[in-house]
Amino acid sequence: MSTLLQGESQAPITGPGPDSAQAPGSSCDSGPGRECFGKADRKLYSVGDPIAGFSPGSSYLSSRGSIVKWFWDSTEEGYRAYHMDEYDEDKNPGGIINLGTSENKLCFDLLSRRLRQSDMLRVEPFLLQYPDWRGHQFLREEVARFLTFYCKSPAPLKPENVVVLNGCSSLFSALAMVLCEVGEAFLIPAPCYGSITEHVYLYSNVRLVYVYLDSEVTGTDTRPFQLTVDKLEIALQGAHSQGVKVKGLILLSPQNPLGDVYSPVELQEYLEFARRHALHVIVDEIYMLSVFDKSTTYHSVLSLDRLPDPQRTHVMWATSKDFGMSGLRFGTLYTENKDVASAVASLCRYHGLSGFLQHQMAQLLRDREWINGVYLPENHARLKAAHAYVSEELRALGVPFLQCGAGFCIWADLRKYLPKGTFEEEMLLWRRFLGNKVLLSFGKAFKCKEPGWFRFIFSDKAHRLCLGMQRVRQVLEGKSQVAANPLFSRPLEPSSQLQGDDH
Amino acid sequence: MSTLLQGESQAPITGPGPDSAQAPGSSCDSGPGRECFGKADRKLYSVGDPIAGFSPGSSYLSSRGSIVKWFWDSTEEGYRAYHMDEYDEDKNPGGIINLGTSENKLCFDLLSRRLRQSDMLRVEPFLLQYPDWRGHQFLREEVARFLTFYCKSPAPLKPENVVVLNGCSSLFSALAMVLCEVGEAFLIPAPCYGSITEHVYLYSNVRLVYVYLDSEVTGTDTRPFQLTVDKLEIALQGAHSQGVKVKGLILLSPQNPLGDVYSPVELQEYLEFARRHALHVIVDEIYMLSVFDKSTTYHSVLSLDRLPDPQRTHVMWATSKDFGMSGLRFGTLYTENKDVASAVASLCRYHGLSGFLQHQMAQLLRDREWINGVYLPENHARLKAAHAYVSEELRALGVPFLQCGAGFCIWADLRKYLPKGTFEEEMLLWRRFLGNKVLLSFGKAFKCKEPGWFRFIFSDKAHRLCLGMQRVRQVLEGKSQVAANPLFSRPLEPSSQLQGDDH
Repeated sequence: MSTLLQGESQAPITGPGPDSAQAPGSSCDSGPGRECFGKADRKLYSVGDPIAGFSPGSSYLSSRGSIVKWFWDSTEEGYRAYHMDEYDEDKNPGGIINLGTSENKLCFDLLSRRLRQSDMLRVEPFLLQYPDWRGHQFLREEVARFLTFYCKSPAPLKPENVVVLNGCSSLFSALAMVLCEVGEAFLIPAPCYGSITEHVYLYSNVRLVYVYLDSEVTGTDTRPFQLTVDKLEIALQGAHSQGVKVKGLILLSPQNPLGDVYSPVELQEYLEFARRHALHVIVDEIYMLSVFDKSTTYHSVLSLDRLPDPQRTHVMWATSKDFGMSGLRFGTLYTENKDVASAVASLCRYHGLSGFLQHQMAQLLRDREWINGVYLPENHARLKAAHAYVSEELRALGVPFLQCGAGFCIWADLRKYLPKGTFEEEMLLWRRFLGNKVLLSFGKAFKCKEPGWFRFIFSDKAHRLCLGMQRVRQVLEGKSQVAANPLFSRPLEPSSQLQGDDH
Repeated sequence: MSTLLQGESQAPITGPGPDSAQAPGSSCDSGPGRECFGKADRKLYSVGDPIAGFSPGSSYLSSRGSIVKWFWDSTEEGYRAYHMDEYDEDKNPGGIINLGTSENKLCFDLLSRRLRQSDMLRVEPFLLQYPDWRGHQFLREEVARFLTFYCKSPAPLKPENVVVLNGCSSLFSALAMVLCEVGEAFLIPAPCYGSITEHVYLYSNVRLVYVYLDSEVTGTDTRPFQLTVDKLEIALQGAHSQGVKVKGLILLSPQNPLGDVYSPVELQEYLEFARRHALHVIVDEIYMLSVFDKSTTYHSVLSLDRLPDPQRTHVMWATSKDFGMSGLRFGTLYTENKDVASAVASLCRYHGLSGFLQHQMAQLLRDREWINGVYLPENHARLKAAHAYVSEELRALGVPFLQCGAGFCIWADLRKYLPKGTFEEEMLLWRRFLGNKVLLSFGKAFKCKEPGWFRFIFSDKAHRLCLGMQRVRQVLEGKSQVAANPLFSRPLEPSSQLQGDDH
């Protein structure tokens, strides 16, 4: 609830910027993949078209295989520049600083010390053999205890409601498969992290209906980009009127990229909305332990005394963000719905993780002394300091941004740098940053409806943040020396792919 | 080529047993999911119907989600008995002996010693961060070197043709997705291990066309269950005539459950057949280092001087079988087709494996001194001894079986124990084994067209093999004391699921 827009007063932060790509009108009769507008040309929602811009490719692949490959190629195109010229303090100080990928790089020292301890390496025959595909029992018990404690569940959570797999990307894929038919959809408030589009589409052919949030605070809203039930209702009815069947709602909590932390009252409202329409709710709480601001109180959905529709409420969490280990591929589902748990478990043989990792994760999650006494306090202090540094830099630049106390990113308003306020300008600005060797993420990749918003990842070491922000300043002040690099002069599509491997 | 049927002379091993479920006729005009017959009532192929027997279930799931869950429940049903009553020498000596799951349990001592060595635990920031989804470069380089050496490739294999993921099950799923449209099919010679049905179906909705092989040696065949190009041609044309589009051929080499090792001439013939019809060939070489009989020479597809259609030839391998570590989830694709590699890589974010495991696998694969000097010789000696023991027991029982020198199983002919020669009797016999506390796999689960064949896994410790074979003997000699356990008295369907977690 502490999300407030910070920044210079002269920056117009209310009212969407003009968007030359927008068509006027208030009707919602356009087909799937088209955007819909409410009164006063305000886009209220859109039914996503994940393959807009796709052109068929290989003769060796099926048509869906070509689409799958196209997503890969597009990702590669945006990410290639960074990987070809990665910054290294010693070996490549002129390389690209990555403020685009949402990873916590602040605590490798703590993690290394813990993960090197002797309890981590266990080699037993049962770990080498085929596992229970839901995850080993010892790990599911540990996850249940861990979530009970950190989610502040009023009653102990049960191991039989836990399914363990190799990350939340896989979990989105599996849930989309088992909850939706081909072509059905999930509602998701936007801006939202862009890769979910692929997670629910590539294997499962499920779409997203974006519930557009505004930076402008209007009506009964109390903060920018506020999610309300009214907005959910409009998007749901709109999608239905377009013939798109919506099967569920995806909530990111804390939100990425906004950093929003929902209050219990808000959570209840969203869940009640879903119950009324018999929608499943997938709550992605992957940043739940990354609430670094002491004035912000996080409320897990699992902390609620009563879930409106427990059989349709499914919670996901992973160690990727909160423990800074996206490369280890560990995620988990908590659901009281036995059918959903079994169906996801059935797909888990394609999302399995090493028995060794299962042991390591159990050791980590049960070590409350280290988590509470060492890791979380230090991690939060470092996140807070890094956030303060980037916030101060943005303030000094006169760039408005959303104030938040959770997550790894700052959602910043660079609209004043887009004279015409178009997505084309947003892309050009992003290229100027990349050309000046700093990788950011632009708003269109998050389905933000207002051109000009950028996501700054701050969960990185001070020397890289410092250099990265210097390079940002150079661009914004028109002092950068962007070479006429052909890499930056050709179209980069689809825009949602440009984050690389992100969550 | 050394596959010969061994056993007592009075057992009729030629000519399929009568099958009350068979319909007469030689036409192939039945719809998908129906079996087709050639002359003299010989089934030549069938188009698989993975969901025969499915009845819709949960109101919370999509229709495909219900199917996915049904597969899980079916697996659980067959496997539950074993997991509820697992044999343990000390704690549960009356528990079930598992001769059904294809795992190598002979070398945990060797593996434990190697995997506990200090080089295995490496904790570096880059291993904790998002990986290249194709697999870390260091691992793909190691895999390329490993396959070059052990597959005897005439030229060095290239890291850029390697994609690494969490097991071959995932790889089947990904390849089905990117090579086939919904409802298309792969040819596969049968009997074959049954879980491929799910791997290509659950996410990707691809079917299998079973090319039936006979135990009877007829025409130009020189051994039982011989795969010939004629049989492939008939199945392909038959499937096409039924309106089923076939996109590829799956070869298991060494074959599971037959233990067949194809000669270079045979491989070339199969690959030429595929080339003529522009079919992809997926060659699963997961048992390639488990050739324990010195008189058997294994030839990888990658050892051939010239592949007829390299752009449509895709090889898979994993450590699950050859290194007895199915619980660690490591598999790899080798393909020269860049489009296929990229498309599979695009799906790899759902099949990712831990950075730690990638390091461990690279350490393992590069340790030729241990592999060649310690592991392989000892593993092969143990496999050979275990195979000899179970072979001898079967001979003593008068049970004919296929002689083989590769893999973990013996394909045994129990047809004489089925008075009417039906699959119902096969299932009853399987239940009698389970009731007498020994889990086997029955032929129908492998799509064997002749009722009465069973797979015996022999890659287990002597004391378990001994007890397991005692229990088999008791059943076959009518001396078992099978309790009237309700678990064994109700229908267990679908039959393909009864193996549990198998490959």
